[in-house]
Amino acid sequence: MSINLDPLQAEQDSYWMAEAIRLAEESLYLTSPNPRVGCVIVHDQQLIGQGSTQQVGHDHAEIQAIKNAIARGNEAALKGATFYVTLEPCSHHGRTPPCVDAIIRHQAARVVIAMLDPNPLVGGRGVDKLQAEGIEVNTGVLAEEALELNTGFIARMLNKRPWVRTKLASSMDGKVALANGESKWITSSTARDDGQHWRARSCLVLTGIGTLQADNPLLNVRAIETPRQPIRAVIDRLFVIDVAATIFNEDPVWVFVEDRVFTAQELEKQRFLEQEKNARIIKMPLALDGVDGQALDLHGIMDYLAINEINEVHLEAGPRLNAGFLNAGLVDEVLLYIAPKIIGPGREVFALSPLEKLSDAKQMVFFEQQAVGVDVRLRARDDKRWQALLTAVSEK
Amino acid sequence: MSINLDPLQAEQDSYWMAEAIRLAEESLYLTSPNPRVGCVIVHDQQLIGQGSTQQVGHDHAEIQAIKNAIARGNEAALKGATFYVTLEPCSHHGRTPPCVDAIIRHQAARVVIAMLDPNPLVGGRGVDKLQAEGIEVNTGVLAEEALELNTGFIARMLNKRPWVRTKLASSMDGKVALANGESKWITSSTARDDGQHWRARSCLVLTGIGTLQADNPLLNVRAIETPRQPIRAVIDRLFVIDVAATIFNEDPVWVFVEDRVFTAQELEKQRFLEQEKNARIIKMPLALDGVDGQALDLHGIMDYLAINEINEVHLEAGPRLNAGFLNAGLVDEVLLYIAPKIIGPGREVFALSPLEKLSDAKQMVFFEQQAVGVDVRLRARDDKRWQALLTAVSEK
Repeated sequence: MSINLDPLQAEQDSYWMAEAIRLAEESLYLTSPNPRVGCVIVHDQQLIGQGSTQQVGHDHAEIQAIKNAIARGNEAALKGATFYVTLEPCSHHGRTPPCVDAIIRHQAARVVIAMLDPNPLVGGRGVDKLQAEGIEVNTGVLAEEALELNTGFIARMLNKRPWVRTKLASSMDGKVALANGESKWITSSTARDDGQHWRARSCLVLTGIGTLQADNPLLNVRAIETPRQPIRAVIDRLFVIDVAATIFNEDPVWVFVEDRVFTAQELEKQRFLEQEKNARIIKMPLALDGVDGQALDLHGIMDYLAINEINEVHLEAGPRLNAGFLNAGLVDEVLLYIAPKIIGPGREVFALSPLEKLSDAKQMVFFEQQAVGVDVRLRARDDKRWQALLTAVSEK
Repeated sequence: MSINLDPLQAEQDSYWMAEAIRLAEESLYLTSPNPRVGCVIVHDQQLIGQGSTQQVGHDHAEIQAIKNAIARGNEAALKGATFYVTLEPCSHHGRTPPCVDAIIRHQAARVVIAMLDPNPLVGGRGVDKLQAEGIEVNTGVLAEEALELNTGFIARMLNKRPWVRTKLASSMDGKVALANGESKWITSSTARDDGQHWRARSCLVLTGIGTLQADNPLLNVRAIETPRQPIRAVIDRLFVIDVAATIFNEDPVWVFVEDRVFTAQELEKQRFLEQEKNARIIKMPLALDGVDGQALDLHGIMDYLAINEINEVHLEAGPRLNAGFLNAGLVDEVLLYIAPKIIGPGREVFALSPLEKLSDAKQMVFFEQQAVGVDVRLRARDDKRWQALLTAVSEK
């Protein structure tokens, strides 16, 4: 079980796996909390079937691809075919029957896999089962590209924590607003629309009560089409959220508040929000080492989110909550839009305390720089965590 | 006189002009204060000669290319050939004889020009002279690429001012140093070496006395090979520069000081620096509206530099002098290296006063984003000024 070393075969494998990844991308806004998976079935270097994961409870990519092959009249060609699939096929009965059984039943000759599935219910057993039936298995083809589409899912499986992507929009001199608070707009509408793509691929858009009170945002996906909306969540220790806030449309909103005995008025507010506004009020303990010693335990919130099948968190918050996440070691990725403006004194992206030594700075790794309209989008991540995920999906 | 509209011809013209630009790039560190110019001579779609501008006083690109053609045994083919040249050929006797005469003498059929020369001694007269001899002339082919190599020269010709490129190195949150001043190093050695390329192509590296006293830099080009060193200059109103500063190696250093009567001690310091240290002490008036009401007149310094044939200024300064240039409207281009670090409170790239309105922010335009080692290099410029230069070299 390894990358195939024949150069022509390796080139063909990369070509077809790129197709499978393209298919997985098509379901980027659709499959949560399931991973985004693409599958192409190839016989004699001809594509005979293709598919991608649908909504939860519906077909996995492999089953979609088999059905697609049959619909194209290619059922006989499944025998001896190669399956290219971006994630190890499942071997357990979950919401759907195991995909490896279908692959075996149709007598595939070879299965090429981008990522192993660190889901403890799969954990290499898919590969084992295929090999036990004499099917050749190769793994690790375009693993990085496949992981990029499913960082949150893999992080949740492996670390029991979502992947947190912090979205920031600053001037060239690192400011998110003027000193007087004006921030509309630092970046262009093109960059703001681009930001909605990242909301759409997340499971949950998270902000703080400060941002909610200042901007009264809806925080949903509007600028682009999406078959599903992410859940929106607010960290609001004192439970002061306005019941008339714009965020309470009809879709779910989670509100994290301090775990204490509610007053009668607060109980009534909770009842109203939960029964009339599709909200969920979630009580969390205080952190022992919070930003000001009295912030909610962000690690506890992350645990709660992972248990509730949240893969990717899209954090769109103010400088204080951003700093809280950074100090808690919870910023996995930064999505930074930079406008070609210089504005001078203003609000920082992270409200941190001064460092003593430069070597204490939070060190990330850039992995993308891209013009987005007149602005630039930079992406950086915690490389140690990323590499740990990559290792987990690459090695059995 | 215009871009040729025949599509095949236009494609061929772009191809050969790109070659001429590549040649011009080869003399990027060499030709100042002359522009960097490349020339290829083509006959029947075969390259028969090529050249680029050499040091001041030596051959221009066209002459180099003609000599090259002759050396290759292609003298006869010069008759009827097409010259591709990145800048309008000169028609005046400067340090060398006019290039148009040589082109006419060898009976070229066509001359394709990237940029017209806004030098008042040329000013379209090169084109006129060629056309008067029945030579077809096309202009504006890859004008933007050619201008990029000679922004400083064109700015000086047109505006009687150098082009000021401000080099900055910051963290992702826009800081050039910790609050305690530690700044070694925000960016990687790869980015710092890349920065030396921009020093090398400039005519003058400029800094402030604050940076000089804090870092005692040499400010020359070391990380890359260069046939010539830029002049180094320091803005030092109070003439407090240490005569033992590292910057005084053997190469020229210009020191801008306040225009006032020197003390005997200062006169002796001036004599010593000028006679023993290859320095030039230049007295400048104070600005009426300087950063603190008592800064040197930066516009006056720019005038001085233009008169002294400085095309590109590479500004490598601290937050205060950077702000002084920005406030004086003298930042034409920003070269910003961003490190994938978050450091929190620290020193700003520009020490500016707060803005009242976001619409008052200095607005630039990004034109490049590029990974440089682990860092990212962003380039932004004053688009209005750039477009004015582009218009000047494109329209007669």
